Order: sequence, then structure tokens, then C-alpha cells
Amino acid sequence: MSFFRSRWVEHPEGVVEVPGGGLPKGFRAAGVACGIKAGGAKDLGLLVSDLPDTTSAARFSSSAALSAPILLTKRRARLDALRAAVVNSGNANAATGNRGVDDAAKTQGAAALACGVGEDRVAVASTGVIGVPLPTEQIIVGTLAASRALRADGDRDFAQAIRTTDALDKRVTLDVELSAGTVRLSAQAKGAGMISPRFATLLVFVQTDAVLAAQDCDLLLGVTVRRSFERVSVDGQLSTSDTVLLMASGGSGIEVAPDTNDERRFGLALDATMRQLALTVVRDGEGARRVGRVLVRGDEHSVVPVARAVADSPLVKTALYGGDPNWGRIIQAVGAALAGAAPLAVDIRIEGIPVCTAGALAPHDGRALREAVQREEVQYEIDIPGSGGETELFFSDLGHEYVSINADYTT
Amino acid sequence: MSFFRSRWVEHPEGVVEVPGGGLPKGFRAAGVACGIKAGGAKDLGLLVSDLPDTTSAARFSSSAALSAPILLTKRRARLDALRAAVVNSGNANAATGNRGVDDAAKTQGAAALACGVGEDRVAVASTGVIGVPLPTEQIIVGTLAASRALRADGDRDFAQAIRTTDALDKRVTLDVELSAGTVRLSAQAKGAGMISPRFATLLVFVQTDAVLAAQDCDLLLGVTVRRSFERVSVDGQLSTSDTVLLMASGGSGIEVAPDTNDERRFGLALDATMRQLALTVVRDGEGARRVGRVLVRGDEHSVVPVARAVADSPLVKTALYGGDPNWGRIIQAVGAALAGAAPLAVDIRIEGIPVCTAGALAPHDGRALREAVQREEVQYEIDIPGSGGETELFFSDLGHEYVSINADYTT
Repeated sequence: MSFFRSRWVEHPEGVVEVPGGGLPKGFRAAGVACGIKAGGAKDLGLLVSDLPDTTSAARFSSSAALSAPILLTKRRARLDALRAAVVNSGNANAATGNRGVDDAAKTQGAAALACGVGEDRVAVASTGVIGVPLPTEQIIVGTLAASRALRADGDRDFAQAIRTTDALDKRVTLDVELSAGTVRLSAQAKGAGMISPRFATLLVFVQTDAVLAAQDCDLLLGVTVRRSFERVSVDGQLSTSDTVLLMASGGSGIEVAPDTNDERRFGLALDATMRQLALTVVRDGEGARRVGRVLVRGDEHSVVPVARAVADSPLVKTALYGGDPNWGRIIQAVGAALAGAAPLAVDIRIEGIPVCTAGALAPHDGRALREAVQREEVQYEIDIPGSGGETELFFSDLGHEYVSINADYTT
Repeated sequence: MSFFRSRWVEHPEGVVEVPGGGLPKGFRAAGVACGIKAGGAKDLGLLVSDLPDTTSAARFSSSAALSAPILLTKRRARLDALRAAVVNSGNANAATGNRGVDDAAKTQGAAALACGVGEDRVAVASTGVIGVPLPTEQIIVGTLAASRALRADGDRDFAQAIRTTDALDKRVTLDVELSAGTVRLSAQAKGAGMISPRFATLLVFVQTDAVLAAQDCDLLLGVTVRRSFERVSVDGQLSTSDTVLLMASGGSGIEVAPDTNDERRFGLALDATMRQLALTVVRDGEGARRVGRVLVRGDEHSVVPVARAVADSPLVKTALYGGDPNWGRIIQAVGAALAGAAPLAVDIRIEGIPVCTAGALAPHDGRALREAVQREEVQYEIDIPGSGGETELFFSDLGHEYVSINADYTT
């Protein structure tokens, strides 16, 4: 199995990866080049379910500067019964005012026409540069072209078209064995920068041919997003454009009913998929070399701010990049998060090695620590005073590649 | 005048820079190498006032993981009557537990003995790596050596000894004309990384030979710190070790009395000094190329979180580094700070050029904007809804040098 790479994701039972990919029954997808990205790269993706009873659920960024497609989709689409998604990369259509919302509406209309579904069943998503008007004509032409290219194995092209600075592939197709048969689960995601723990912070499209009531769709998506995309940080930056969309076509005829073993099994497969996708986003992390996981236990009100302070600290992140065992930066970040509470009795373990006990250095094998922080995944466990709280965050390092990618993104 | 370089610092009236440096009457200082830093670099600084009526005021980091010297100084020193400061670089003596506090106490004792003052009149400060026991014997030997090297023009050596990753000199000597004559004001600072807007986040030592009551010392220090070191961010990281110390020897015999023109004039000189030092810290910013100033006006509860979100955003900071006019990242940071408040009517001007009005792009001269963001100082003005609030923050960019400096600081 090549998809479930991280030791922090439990491999779900009864799940088989489909090496060649492909969408669940009822879905078709395509990805084409419409001219937003230079050099003829794919930049327009279209996804559609041909089955009228398709259910769905969605989650969006909580930014106050929401992109136009999110404003439009939240206002004018039936989020529990979406049948299509039209996505462009290279331009976020954010901070574009009323014109941006009009442009998103035109895109929605074009996709509805091209796919033969109602406008209110089309979600629109855009990712890329903020504050540049959308080249709507190109997108409409691209959408029509994409509709002619729709295929049951179009997930690969669709995934390619929604990427921006992504280096790693974020796509999987799984077969999930349930009591009455096998359902398929597929997902395509994009995300590498502007990733914050506050929410999705990327584009994620998940499809299944299971029969799923809309409210179960919503429940499963909510639970799994909280354990995946809400627990990752590349650079602590909440995006304007985050969108996560789960669609269930029902094409397999196999029902996933609430409170059954099948729901549990399907939920675990979805959960593992979302967690691995989230970890792959962090690993991608605009040039990241290593992934950190910080686990914080203690006072229930303090564990999340402490975890965020560690995960978002540029000092911790550069040390992770350098494979540097500088645990002083962990305690510095913890101390900053709990400002005013000195002296602080905090315990820190890195890859299981106690480095700090009750706020003071703990004697440890320096060579073993140095070796441990050179690995691809580094775990930090932090115990702060108090009880009742426990949280985790996954984060990327901060290295030269991040600077190079972000120092001249528009120019 | 070479010190007041920034256009964001008003040059104070009646103030003359003393090119060769030198301390105010009553003060002596020295800097020596005691062997913490490699290669015989200076790493131990000693500062003393020979006048018994010296007054003082101090501010410290609010971190919950306060360094041992700060814990000791706050507990055991008369902060309103400090006569000496002993400072080492290369080791922060933080996260070192009871042993660390004992080590700081031994350092304090050695400095008291060497300078012939009471232990409770000695401040101790350390900066450098966190979580490594202090080589106390070396520091005691170094303190005694420094006491033999004390000189009225020892400010240069002292400033050198307290530096860590600093590239720029942060030292000034000013003569300030008051109604009854001239007083001298000198300052030495160190700080480049682990700099956050929450407070000092560095070491700053300021001396004057004016006659200043201890409570005026405290008042002046409090006001000027709020306008300088509380308004800067290199990497948003609150240090364990921040210390700002103002000492007034009274050696000039010239009094600065409360609520006089002289106090106003002296206060403006101190204010300009602190602001320029803070800006130089930001400019230093562990390899920074450019300095940004963000001004936010609008709802009184929102202006500070918005300013911090912009100043600490790695996306904004890498764009500043790259001289990239990507103002979309400004609105992204604003949107994240005000999550849940979409849609957001925000106005943004960069170097006076309106780029965003009511949340949507404003037509502007792209070439003029590109040129403007290539300068050494770039100003961002942001108007958010609401009223009653206004704040500013100075911040550094994020570039390759920051990564290089921080990716292997301990190894």
C-alpha cells in the first residue's frame, strides 16, 4: 500500500487501495488547460455525479475574507445535494468584490449547463493568486471542454488541474468492504501553503458510491475534518478559499446506515484517508523536508494554544528543517503561549526521549536525540500542568524551499 | 547623524549624537571573553554605576518559561536602585531549573563583589541557547576580569559582549540639551531573533547621568517600551530572556523633574532612541532585507490582532523579502484574524497606493507598486470596519538568511 505512509495513520481494516485509481460508480471527472496557468498546464477541473439522488456535505474556510466562489456556493448551492464541482487553479477569485461573485456565478452556470444539472447543485472552488479578476471567459470555455472530456477514470486529470504549488500527489482510490458488498471511496486534494490548523485550508474532494443520507454525510465529514484538516499547520495561515466536499452517489446500491458496523468501518476508512491526505499536505508543505507531530496534555483550555504555538513557531520549524535537537525552542514556544504563568513545570519528550522535566533540562543521550530528529517524522510530547485536555497537531518544517516558493509567487 | 536612520522615527530636538560613543558620568563598562562563545569572541559584559544614588527601572519578558537570571533578578534585586548589570551571551540559562537560579545567584554575587556594590543592586541577564547548564566558573572568572577592564568608554566592548546573532550595531550615545545644561543618554541593545510584539524580547541597557527619581525612571521606561519594543516582531516568538534596563546615575547633577519641559525633551530623546533601537532590531531580523510597518485603524478590539496577523504572517514576510507586491496576502491575514466576519469591507494601502477598497481590488499602477515594495522600508495601511482603535507594528521580512541562521543554531 503506497497511500497510507505515515506511522500516525492507522491502516483501516477491510480497505484495499486501487493502484490505478478511478472514481466510484456514478462519478465522472476531467481536468483541462483553460489558459490561466502558463505553459498549457491543466488548471480547470470538473467533477460530476450522474445520479440524481447524490447527497453531499461541505466545509469551508472561516476567514473573514472569504473567496467569491465560497460566498456564492454557500449562498446559492444546496450543500446537502451537490452533484458537480467546478474548480480552477491559478486564480483564487478572492478579494474581487461583486465582480468576483458574478464571475463565480457565471462559472456555476456554465458547469450546470455543461453537466446537465441545476445551478444550485454545482459547487464552485478557486485557488491561486488573491486579488486578480478571474478570466471568466477562459473558464467558461474550459468548463465546456472539460465536460466533453469527463471520464470515470478522470480523477487523475482532475487532481492535476486543481494543484498549485503542490509537489506531492494527493489522490487515492480505495475499495471498502462492507457487510453487503464493496463500496468505493476516492479523494483528490490540493494544498501545500496557506495551511493553518483552524480549518481545511485547501481543496479536498471525496467521492463514494455508497448510499449515504445527507445528514450522515455531514456527520462523517464533520468528525473526520476535525481529526485531519483541523489538526495541520504548514504556515499558520488560514486561507480565503478552503473547501472540503464529500459526495455520495449511491451508485453501488450499498447503504451505509447510521449506527451500524458498516458505518463504523466506512467512517474509519474515510478518517484514515482524510488524515493521510492532511499529513501529505503537511509533508508537501511548500518544500518541507520533515513533518512534526506535537501532542499536548494538561489543562483543557491551554493544550490547543500550546500546540499551535509550537506548530507555528518559525524557530521550532527551522530547527525541524535543520534536524536540530534544539528543544529549548519548544519550551520557549510553550512559555510564550502561557505568558504570565512563570515558573512553569513542563515535561517534554522528543521521539520518546525525555529532554525536559518540570521545566528544566533532563539528562539525555544527545547522540540518540540528534539521530531521532533527523528522521522524516518527529514527535514532540508535551505535558503541561492541569488536566482534562489533550490535543495533537501536525506541522511542516520551514526551510529554504518555503522562502523560495513564497518570495516571488506573483512576480 | 547616523543613528536615527528610519523615516518612522522623528529626530528629537536638542539632541546631538556623540560619534565616538562613551557612557554618561558615573558609568563604566567592559566586555571580555570568558569562553562560552567559540573562538575567543567577547561573551561577558559588565556595566556599573559608581554613584550610590543611582536609580533604575526594568521590564522583563512575560514568558511562562522565564530564564533563571530574570527569575533571580525579579526576586532578589532592587529594581528601582540597580547599580550594576552582568550579562553573558551564548547561553540563556533558561529551562535550567533550580541549578540555573543558583548559577544566576553566583553570577550576581561575583559581580557584586567585583564592583563593590550590594548583591541586591545587581541585575543578571543571559542570552543564547536554552536548556544548557551555565558554565558558572567561567562566568565568575570572566566577571572578575571584566571588573578590571571597566572604563568610561567601555560601552563598545559591553555592546559587543552581549550580542548573539546580531549583524548590526545597536549602540548610541547622545547629548541632550536641557534648560540647566546637557545630560548624556547612552544605550546598548542586542536582539535579532526570537522577537515578538508582546514585549522587549531582547536585551536593552540604557544609561543617563540625569538626576531622575526612580518612579520617573519607571514611568519613562514604561511609556517608551510600549512605543518601541512592544511594537516590533521579527518572528512572533516571545523570548524567555527579554530584559530592558534604564539606569540614571545623577552624575551630571542636572535634574529631570516630573511634568517639566525638560522631562518632555528627555522623554522624546529616550523615545526616539528606543524606537530606533527597536527598528534596528527588526532591520537586523536575522538576515532581514526589508522592514515593514503595518498601521491598522478601526474597531478597537480588532486592530491589534489584525496588525499581529499581518506582521507575523510568513506569507506576508516572504513577499516583503522578495519585494513582491502580493497584497492578496495582506487581505488573507486580515481575513484570518477576523475569522467568521465575512464578507469584510477592508481598505488597504501600500506605500500610499490604494490596492484594495471595501474588500475588493482597487485599480492601481502595478509598476509604481512594484517599485514601492522594493524599498528598504514598506508601509501597509489597513482600515477595518469599526472605530476607536489604531495601532502600528514594525516587522522584518522572512528570507533565506533567517532559515540558514536558525536551521542549525545548536549544532
